Amino acid sequence: MDRYQSFANSGFGRFVVGRLGLPRPHPLRRHVPGQPPLDGPVLLGGGGRLVEPVRAALGSMGAEVAAEVGTDAGRPAALVFDASGIDSVERLRELHEFFHPVIRSLGPSGRVVVLGAPPASTGSTGSRIAQRALEGFTRSVGKELKRGGTAQLVLVAPGAEDAVESTLRFLLSGRSAYVSGQVIRVGPARVGAPEDWERPLAGKVALVTGAARGIGAAIAEVLGRDGAHVVCLDVPAQGEELSKVANRVGGSSLQLDVTAADAPARLVEHLDLRHGGVDVVVHNAGITRDKTLGRMDAARWDAVVAVNLASQVRVNEALLAADALRPDGRVIGVSSIAGIAGNVGQTNYATTKAGVIGMVDALSAEVAGRATVNAVAPGFIETKMTAAVPLVIREAGRRMNSLSQGGLPVDVAEAIAWFAHPASSGVNGNVVRVCGQSLLGA
Amino acid sequence: MDRYQSFANSGFGRFVVGRLGLPRPHPLRRHVPGQPPLDGPVLLGGGGRLVEPVRAALGSMGAEVAAEVGTDAGRPAALVFDASGIDSVERLRELHEFFHPVIRSLGPSGRVVVLGAPPASTGSTGSRIAQRALEGFTRSVGKELKRGGTAQLVLVAPGAEDAVESTLRFLLSGRSAYVSGQVIRVGPARVGAPEDWERPLAGKVALVTGAARGIGAAIAEVLGRDGAHVVCLDVPAQGEELSKVANRVGGSSLQLDVTAADAPARLVEHLDLRHGGVDVVVHNAGITRDKTLGRMDAARWDAVVAVNLASQVRVNEALLAADALRPDGRVIGVSSIAGIAGNVGQTNYATTKAGVIGMVDALSAEVAGRATVNAVAPGFIETKMTAAVPLVIREAGRRMNSLSQGGLPVDVAEAIAWFAHPASSGVNGNVVRVCGQSLLGA
Repeated sequence: MDRYQSFANSGFGRFVVGRLGLPRPHPLRRHVPGQPPLDGPVLLGGGGRLVEPVRAALGSMGAEVAAEVGTDAGRPAALVFDASGIDSVERLRELHEFFHPVIRSLGPSGRVVVLGAPPASTGSTGSRIAQRALEGFTRSVGKELKRGGTAQLVLVAPGAEDAVESTLRFLLSGRSAYVSGQVIRVGPARVGAPEDWERPLAGKVALVTGAARGIGAAIAEVLGRDGAHVVCLDVPAQGEELSKVANRVGGSSLQLDVTAADAPARLVEHLDLRHGGVDVVVHNAGITRDKTLGRMDAARWDAVVAVNLASQVRVNEALLAADALRPDGRVIGVSSIAGIAGNVGQTNYATTKAGVIGMVDALSAEVAGRATVNAVAPGFIETKMTAAVPLVIREAGRRMNSLSQGGLPVDVAEAIAWFAHPASSGVNGNVVRVCGQSLLGA
Repeated sequence: MDRYQSFANSGFGRFVVGRLGLPRPHPLRRHVPGQPPLDGPVLLGGGGRLVEPVRAALGSMGAEVAAEVGTDAGRPAALVFDASGIDSVERLRELHEFFHPVIRSLGPSGRVVVLGAPPASTGSTGSRIAQRALEGFTRSVGKELKRGGTAQLVLVAPGAEDAVESTLRFLLSGRSAYVSGQVIRVGPARVGAPEDWERPLAGKVALVTGAARGIGAAIAEVLGRDGAHVVCLDVPAQGEELSKVANRVGGSSLQLDVTAADAPARLVEHLDLRHGGVDVVVHNAGITRDKTLGRMDAARWDAVVAVNLASQVRVNEALLAADALRPDGRVIGVSSIAGIAGNVGQTNYATTKAGVIGMVDALSAEVAGRATVNAVAPGFIETKMTAAVPLVIREAGRRMNSLSQGGLPVDVAEAIAWFAHPASSGVNGNVVRVCGQSLLGA
């Protein structure tokens, strides 16, 4: 908890904060290995093609499924509604009928998941409009929830009904603590449940660039926790910190400047010789060189493009050309709220982070069926970098979201682990914000 | 100008506002009939397939085109860059090369327009990534511009090079005063230049719902100014105000509750009998019934869905079934920032406004080639409705955008007139925010 958050949740702090109408950031429930994903029953409603597959998935994850509130089961920890069958705007009323009586009984860090169909996949104009309308509903619910609650919309393609479990496990658990207001698309999966949901990446090799610090180190830790051998990559200048991270996660380290002309070839050679290829590639390395455009010299532009985008494009090309990305591989980018909404002083950075979204769009289509390509887009994450931001701007960034607090590096890492999961082969072409439903947007 | 804006632009106000780091909203240049669209030369750069068609369009609108800054032509009023040929992330550098030396010379209410290609229309992964990256660049530039400047990205489909003039005229002129940070897609046009650019809708019939007040009345006025006969529709209770608007714009009035079961049939009959059909349909009628979801009764949900979405779907169906929408027709919806980002207390309203986006998606595909379907999504617009919002919330809504001020109803109306324009037949399936590049987003 940051200092304001501690204060706001203390006895006196609650009083002051309440009287002044200030935000009261609720401590978020986060994933603890071995603990159940939810601390209460799931209320399941709606009547589309997804109800039964979702019920089965909830059973598989050990969640208790209730039909109504007020039984002995106690406060619901999650409200899950299958809206995929809603085929007219009049029938949107079913959302109100399900949520209105129960939304206020949702427990702390509660979860709302609305399930729908990709609008263009539906048969009629009425369905298409109604399915698109779910987005406005879900995002509003996300903004209304208190005490750490989140709301998401999951659009499940026809034929992908059995592919939702990894996504539900992520969204319902504390792994998605800082994810809210997102629209996630799930298509048919090629691979079902892993042998062990606690170590789904056992036997896999994951590459994480920029792994020496901050978000990159957290990604390495979470992928290591999930069973992967993590190849931690960073520039030679970060060598010492990099080794520490690699040792901590039981992985290996690779000192390499990804912008060097021969870096893609050397990287592919390393992965091929040492590991026989790679399963998960996380392009996390990124830098900022902020200046408004009129004062930004060419060096600042070039450096940011080289690290944040050009090197990633070249590494992808080399991996695919050498067939070093193993079957059912994962390529995961790190975009940013700035890449979606733009930002003052960051024409260079925002260009590259929007380019990462372009990489997801282009490559996910190219490799569909044999790999997935997705990205996270972090909002305000508590790191050394954000700790250096001036107080007022930092506080604005931290509070201007539905959860009134910054996220942690682990929150970004958990979203990446969900993409990396073997059961997530139906999750392709998504850009998911890890931003607490930041107010900032395009 | 609102009172804060007047103060901030006064001599003493400038001092106070500058010392306190408060926003200084610059008076925006707006369209005045008969005046030239721009008050200075256009600097045109880049080297794609769009440079020459754009040069021709700029000539047609009477703009002076300069090759570089610092000539006798004075400060540029607009910077237009054709990035459609950028086919690698390295070549994104051309953005920096063009804009860096000249961006600070841009005059007040200056315009930045970046032209690109729809990423999926390009041939290579590199092009696709680079074209997508333009969005992050343009949105950042929009946030950096001072003194009423705006920045947009226009994605021109292959074969649509000659279809950009109506869009350029809109974006470069004061008609787009409150539009910034938008991504607009232009496809091939069926109809070229109108006989008279000052009265492009001469001989056309336009229907505007909710026309008695506020934004609806402004829409009726602007479409009337542009030469259309405007059928002003509103509920009988607004009859008196409605007649005044209809008289003022030289149109006719129609008292009708669009939610009535027989309303679509009566409306189609009226348009057919009196006018032989309709060219432009603007679904502007909308209501709010705010409550958080747990406290929102079913009547509030139903009323908002009925007015804001269900009636529009039924009217569209009736118009298309009766073939009452004339060739090269226009259907224009009014969405909202709340429909994109969600809003507290507006699960009903945001659902309908997201549904309007679904209507654009679904119907624009359905009628492509014989009509266009687009929507505006207003942000904070100065109306009687927003004047009633409590001061602090009102000031937050008003200032939290790149122009640090609210928009005017005429700004929404001008965007609608651009969609309605006969030369805009290539503008289909767009949702364009009229929000001053509001910080709020999804």
